[in-house]
Amino acid sequence: MSLFLASFVLLCAWLLYPLCCSAQMESDTTPPGTCGPRQFLDTEMFQCSQCGEPLVKSPDGMRCICASRRNVTDHAAECSACSSWQSTSLWETTFLDGSFLACNNSCNLTACELLTNAVILNAFSLETRAYDLYAKAKSQNLPKLFYSNTGLPSLSFGTTSKLNFKLVKYDAGGNFLGWEDVTGGTLQLCTDRQKALDAAYSFGTSYQQSCTVQVSNLLRRVPEPIFYEMFLQFSNAEGTWLWPVPVVNPQVQLNSPASLKSHRLRRFFLVDGLSGRQGNLSNQPVSVTLAAGLLLSVDLPTSSPGDQPAFLLTVKYAKQDRTAATQVSFAVSYTWNPGTSQRDTDIALAALGSVAALYAMLKTSSWVRRSRLQNTGFIILVKFFAFLAGALGNAFFMVTLGTGIYWLIVFKGQQSSAVEIMVPPAGSQIENNFIVYLSCAFALKALDLLHLIITQLTISIFLIDWEKPKEKAVFKSTAGGQKATSSVSVWRTFLVANEWNEMQTCRKSNPSLQLFAVLLLLEVVGLKNIASRDLNLDLHPATDAYLAAWSPILRFGIAASLWLAVGIAQVVFFVGLYERFGEDKIHQFVDLCSVSNVSVFILTHRCYGFYIHGRSVHGHADVGMDAMHACLQKEEENLCPRRGLEANSDIQTFEVLLTDRVRQLYDKITQPLMEGPRGERIGVNLHEQRLRSYYTLNRFLSSFLEHAYRDMDYNVKDKSFLERIMDMEFQEPLDVSVLFTDASASFSRTLFYSNELTLLLFDTLLFSVVDLGTQDFVLAAVITFAVQKLVKMLRHELGRRNLAAKTLVDKQFLI
Amino acid sequence: MSLFLASFVLLCAWLLYPLCCSAQMESDTTPPGTCGPRQFLDTEMFQCSQCGEPLVKSPDGMRCICASRRNVTDHAAECSACSSWQSTSLWETTFLDGSFLACNNSCNLTACELLTNAVILNAFSLETRAYDLYAKAKSQNLPKLFYSNTGLPSLSFGTTSKLNFKLVKYDAGGNFLGWEDVTGGTLQLCTDRQKALDAAYSFGTSYQQSCTVQVSNLLRRVPEPIFYEMFLQFSNAEGTWLWPVPVVNPQVQLNSPASLKSHRLRRFFLVDGLSGRQGNLSNQPVSVTLAAGLLLSVDLPTSSPGDQPAFLLTVKYAKQDRTAATQVSFAVSYTWNPGTSQRDTDIALAALGSVAALYAMLKTSSWVRRSRLQNTGFIILVKFFAFLAGALGNAFFMVTLGTGIYWLIVFKGQQSSAVEIMVPPAGSQIENNFIVYLSCAFALKALDLLHLIITQLTISIFLIDWEKPKEKAVFKSTAGGQKATSSVSVWRTFLVANEWNEMQTCRKSNPSLQLFAVLLLLEVVGLKNIASRDLNLDLHPATDAYLAAWSPILRFGIAASLWLAVGIAQVVFFVGLYERFGEDKIHQFVDLCSVSNVSVFILTHRCYGFYIHGRSVHGHADVGMDAMHACLQKEEENLCPRRGLEANSDIQTFEVLLTDRVRQLYDKITQPLMEGPRGERIGVNLHEQRLRSYYTLNRFLSSFLEHAYRDMDYNVKDKSFLERIMDMEFQEPLDVSVLFTDASASFSRTLFYSNELTLLLFDTLLFSVVDLGTQDFVLAAVITFAVQKLVKMLRHELGRRNLAAKTLVDKQFLI
Repeated sequence: MSLFLASFVLLCAWLLYPLCCSAQMESDTTPPGTCGPRQFLDTEMFQCSQCGEPLVKSPDGMRCICASRRNVTDHAAECSACSSWQSTSLWETTFLDGSFLACNNSCNLTACELLTNAVILNAFSLETRAYDLYAKAKSQNLPKLFYSNTGLPSLSFGTTSKLNFKLVKYDAGGNFLGWEDVTGGTLQLCTDRQKALDAAYSFGTSYQQSCTVQVSNLLRRVPEPIFYEMFLQFSNAEGTWLWPVPVVNPQVQLNSPASLKSHRLRRFFLVDGLSGRQGNLSNQPVSVTLAAGLLLSVDLPTSSPGDQPAFLLTVKYAKQDRTAATQVSFAVSYTWNPGTSQRDTDIALAALGSVAALYAMLKTSSWVRRSRLQNTGFIILVKFFAFLAGALGNAFFMVTLGTGIYWLIVFKGQQSSAVEIMVPPAGSQIENNFIVYLSCAFALKALDLLHLIITQLTISIFLIDWEKPKEKAVFKSTAGGQKATSSVSVWRTFLVANEWNEMQTCRKSNPSLQLFAVLLLLEVVGLKNIASRDLNLDLHPATDAYLAAWSPILRFGIAASLWLAVGIAQVVFFVGLYERFGEDKIHQFVDLCSVSNVSVFILTHRCYGFYIHGRSVHGHADVGMDAMHACLQKEEENLCPRRGLEANSDIQTFEVLLTDRVRQLYDKITQPLMEGPRGERIGVNLHEQRLRSYYTLNRFLSSFLEHAYRDMDYNVKDKSFLERIMDMEFQEPLDVSVLFTDASASFSRTLFYSNELTLLLFDTLLFSVVDLGTQDFVLAAVITFAVQKLVKMLRHELGRRNLAAKTLVDKQFLI
Repeated sequence: MSLFLASFVLLCAWLLYPLCCSAQMESDTTPPGTCGPRQFLDTEMFQCSQCGEPLVKSPDGMRCICASRRNVTDHAAECSACSSWQSTSLWETTFLDGSFLACNNSCNLTACELLTNAVILNAFSLETRAYDLYAKAKSQNLPKLFYSNTGLPSLSFGTTSKLNFKLVKYDAGGNFLGWEDVTGGTLQLCTDRQKALDAAYSFGTSYQQSCTVQVSNLLRRVPEPIFYEMFLQFSNAEGTWLWPVPVVNPQVQLNSPASLKSHRLRRFFLVDGLSGRQGNLSNQPVSVTLAAGLLLSVDLPTSSPGDQPAFLLTVKYAKQDRTAATQVSFAVSYTWNPGTSQRDTDIALAALGSVAALYAMLKTSSWVRRSRLQNTGFIILVKFFAFLAGALGNAFFMVTLGTGIYWLIVFKGQQSSAVEIMVPPAGSQIENNFIVYLSCAFALKALDLLHLIITQLTISIFLIDWEKPKEKAVFKSTAGGQKATSSVSVWRTFLVANEWNEMQTCRKSNPSLQLFAVLLLLEVVGLKNIASRDLNLDLHPATDAYLAAWSPILRFGIAASLWLAVGIAQVVFFVGLYERFGEDKIHQFVDLCSVSNVSVFILTHRCYGFYIHGRSVHGHADVGMDAMHACLQKEEENLCPRRGLEANSDIQTFEVLLTDRVRQLYDKITQPLMEGPRGERIGVNLHEQRLRSYYTLNRFLSSFLEHAYRDMDYNVKDKSFLERIMDMEFQEPLDVSVLFTDASASFSRTLFYSNELTLLLFDTLLFSVVDLGTQDFVLAAVITFAVQKLVKMLRHELGRRNLAAKTLVDKQFLI
């Protein structure tokens, strides 16, 4: 009897609660939409209908019920025969059977709602007394537990669209509490700034929020469970409608009969401090069930929804002690059927890969022809793979850059139209593939750079001094031998070697300027904010705004395209303006060669290389200040013959294709030079031998260039357009060497200067890969800077050694 | 009668409210502290006492009251004669007079509390009916409105101390609602993450939070006003006590009688939705009074509190429409008596300033002696101010750096001890002075750099070629004239000039490396987080943590000290390791001079300069490859005389102090050289004249150095230690020039190389000043980089022109 009385008092409180607290909640009791006061809103048909005569509209305005007859005393009855299952909580013991009887036998709406809520409260199973009674109850007023139809009419959202969700609320006693807008904080258990909370409902923003909260704090906020049904409000030509958002509870589905697995629930709750009360219903609960993980998934495009519901709320409940602290999270994720994009990427990659393989084969064949090697084999394979690495690296880079820019445009570009495409979510196949491709591109480009540097560090270079001894007659030079030539000062050669040494790592862009410009654009101008997983294009988000997670694809897209843009701008400025109106290192060097009467002979392959014709037009350059000034003035006044190798030609730079015979002689002469640095005992003899071979080589090359040898003559030719484009020589190996005129100073390919593309791509990829790993552009810039410096130092120092060894210019002059 | 009934019902609701909602609030009804159940806590004496017999302890446990006799019907009486003031709101009309009568005539506690609350609700004035009635009421139970004693016992807080505030709460009806801990969100009307809210109460954190909220949202959160009294809980040897935090309402003090201005209020409220209700007390209010600005000021040190209360809450109320959005803020600020720190700074500045002036005078006098100018005047004043700018810049820099590091240490160093010192608040005198000093330092240093560059760009430099013509005999050289010397090749001079040109902007530290290293430390390692106005030393604060505002002083302290540390580390590494074991540009250059048989003669002042002795030990250097190798080998094997100017000396670098006579001759010879670049019509004649003066100067200087002129001889001396330290020459001007041996290669002072300190300080200051203006280290780095590049390019290009003009080496060889 006392239990009965207690129940009655409590129930009174339950029923009074919504009345006294309605002002506080400020909920709307009339349903949203365009239906009239006597019509109810049918969310399956999207129409307003009137209820049949004996029925009336339910308080939430969504269905028809039989007229309520509030017979609250019925609730407290017991009915142990109603179900074989046991009640799971004190609250169920107190109210469940009574509400079943009241719902089953009379038109009692709250009793039916209470019965439904009891089912929901058993968050981890449907094999409960509550569900058993719910299934047995027969009443017009019994609310449905599941949605059957979850189709959504065609909707479209713009960038600035807010997801306009509505909640209908019931208390545990089954009373209708009203309608509420879902704004920041309604469903989010973590506190945050209002703006950050609201960001969850701006369309297109991937949202993730989680925190650790004290369960007791949650209980203070939500002392009694509130049951929600969630709806999406939308408008079409006929008016404003509500579309139900189905709820998935993964835990209840696992433990329940198979027939229920595919169903979508209607109701959910956030915090249940009721089921855990023991001993007395006014006690504090021992344990609390809470919605520890809420995930709202949106399936794009909403304009043509597929089989699965466009909006779906997944609720993961967890049971916690009242005194515990627990992790809760709230997330909004957008899924999207990527369609053919992965296949397109694969096709692009296959096509570009084939081109790369073809290109590598061409390059290898060109290399073989230029090397004129007889015994092909392993070295060719290595070369092929080196060329392939470079070409494949480019292919991977193009695909990744294309992917990045594609997603930037199609995702972030949805500013004025309806949003239909989402950037690939974290961990998706597209994103993983992208990361793999990017890593491949970087690894291959690093190999390519290594190949480039090794190639550059092993070139043969020789400085030909054209100066003739002043005292001895010219015809004596071949006979005089070593002693005769030594009266010619070596300092012009030193100066040319010194300048060549300085030019080695000269580039068309300044790497530090590049880094700082990119940092400025990304970090200070704020372009990095474009890479977030939302539709915002705001470069300077407010400090209290929500920052969506980065997408690695977008981040790479913006970083790499900025890097390339800045790099290309630098190169264009450098080549187009600075070199034309300021300083042009390459032409200054050619100029210096010409003035100093020193030619440069470079062999990059066995029989292929470059030649810079530096023979002075004055015949001699080893002169004093006055004569030098006179010479320069003469040239300024155009009183000299032209500087070119051929008469009446200005072209001083050539590509050289030697015959095997010339190369063999060259090898024979330079043998002591080659042995020098390797040999361990550099005696005086070896020194003399090297000097002798130096002079011999000087004589040999100058004679060769003067057409002195009949059997080793050369022709000067222009390269055909196709040869120039493909960087190959088509003609068959003949008995005569060929010098191809080369106005574009291709010899700079043996320096960093003309390999800007490789270096720029390597830098881009290094920067991007580090950023991919650390999500920090500043760190990426620092590491890129360090690696650039290291590569440059290595190239410079080893290049200097090679130069000193090949030209016999002591390292102390190469400073 | 109906009004009476309505009042009664409402009052019932009032009185029931705390009972039904106590579970929801989870407030503690027992006061904190160590007092027994029958004792009350005396917050003025910090002791537990028992109430005298007729009296009992009040519900909040802080005082004694007469036993309550709840006669609620009394409340609704009217008493128009009680006061001449009018009621200001419906709520006052309904309850005020009744509560006055009930309080005055009986032991009714709630009535007295209600009366007090009514006074507080009139937030903008004390000239109200409520205060009038409060002043007239006589009851043991009437709570006090003001605090009289606001002294606090000595307390000390550590870095990790939380400010442990307690609130006692009353509702508008005067009911005691219980005790509550002040945690994040209790007093803060802006929502935020829990951690960020809680940060307000961690000791030493300057806290500032503001946002715009909808008044309707606040009303939903606090539908009825709650009245708070705030206490600080602390423990000492005798137990746990409460110390009242007085409340200041600046608006009420302005409008109120003078006698009340100095008083501190006890109570405050956050949101008042009650006074604004019109027509019916259950209506929604038309206007809402809310605490728009809460400022908790803490006066340090708390261990020895001064006259003003150590903790003070300032509440600024504002009246708003219910539908409006309003700005609300919550701040915790720490004030601290800076004591003598400003005076100390002034003293340091005065002392350093005097030293700077003295130093500038010394430098000027040295400059005058070195210039040997007769007509002193304006130019000396300019020089003095230039030197003063440099020295004063250093003084200002030292003071600002000292200030920055001082505050870093004394403020952030309070990790284990009690916190007694706070960093100067924003806008304080110390901070403003600091910013002025920093700007002065930067401006002066920029002037200093300008002076340095101008000085370096106007030096006289000449390359002396010692080479003797091979064919003609030595004795003919003075007679042979122009034609005789021209058989000596000029290329050695070209190479030396080329190297000098390259060395011009060579520094002891790499500026880009410097920038990236500092960025790495500040942004990636996270040292910038030390500059926040809290006691946190966490380098990587969690994303949801509160970030206190930056202090410019701390920011400069950390940035400048990091910059200097990295710079010094670079210089130490460069000078100590790289130059010793790697490459030493300066000594390589001296070496090159020696090998190439070319000396460098530099005049920085009129009669003072440097000399690098480069005369080849082999007598001639204009030789071929074979001879050069032989020479180098000889030197390696120590078979040569020493390289020094004097016999048996290795010293090749000297400071030069010329006599006036030598300088005059020098000027006479170089006149055509000086005129060259300035003259507009450079005819062939002028060219020849310049060449002639070049050869003459070469002959003159080499003869001078060979002691050829009796009347213009020189001595070689060592500088005394003091002379070396002070960079001056003490001796009187004699008739003989002096060459001071200088093993430390002081000639690099005419390059950037030996001016690293000036450049480093300029960079530091530029970086800091930009950061001060933009609060962005990345932007500061970018701008510093750009300015560095610009300065370097300017110095290099203009230096190259000067070199070309002075040495007659064509610019095309200076690449």
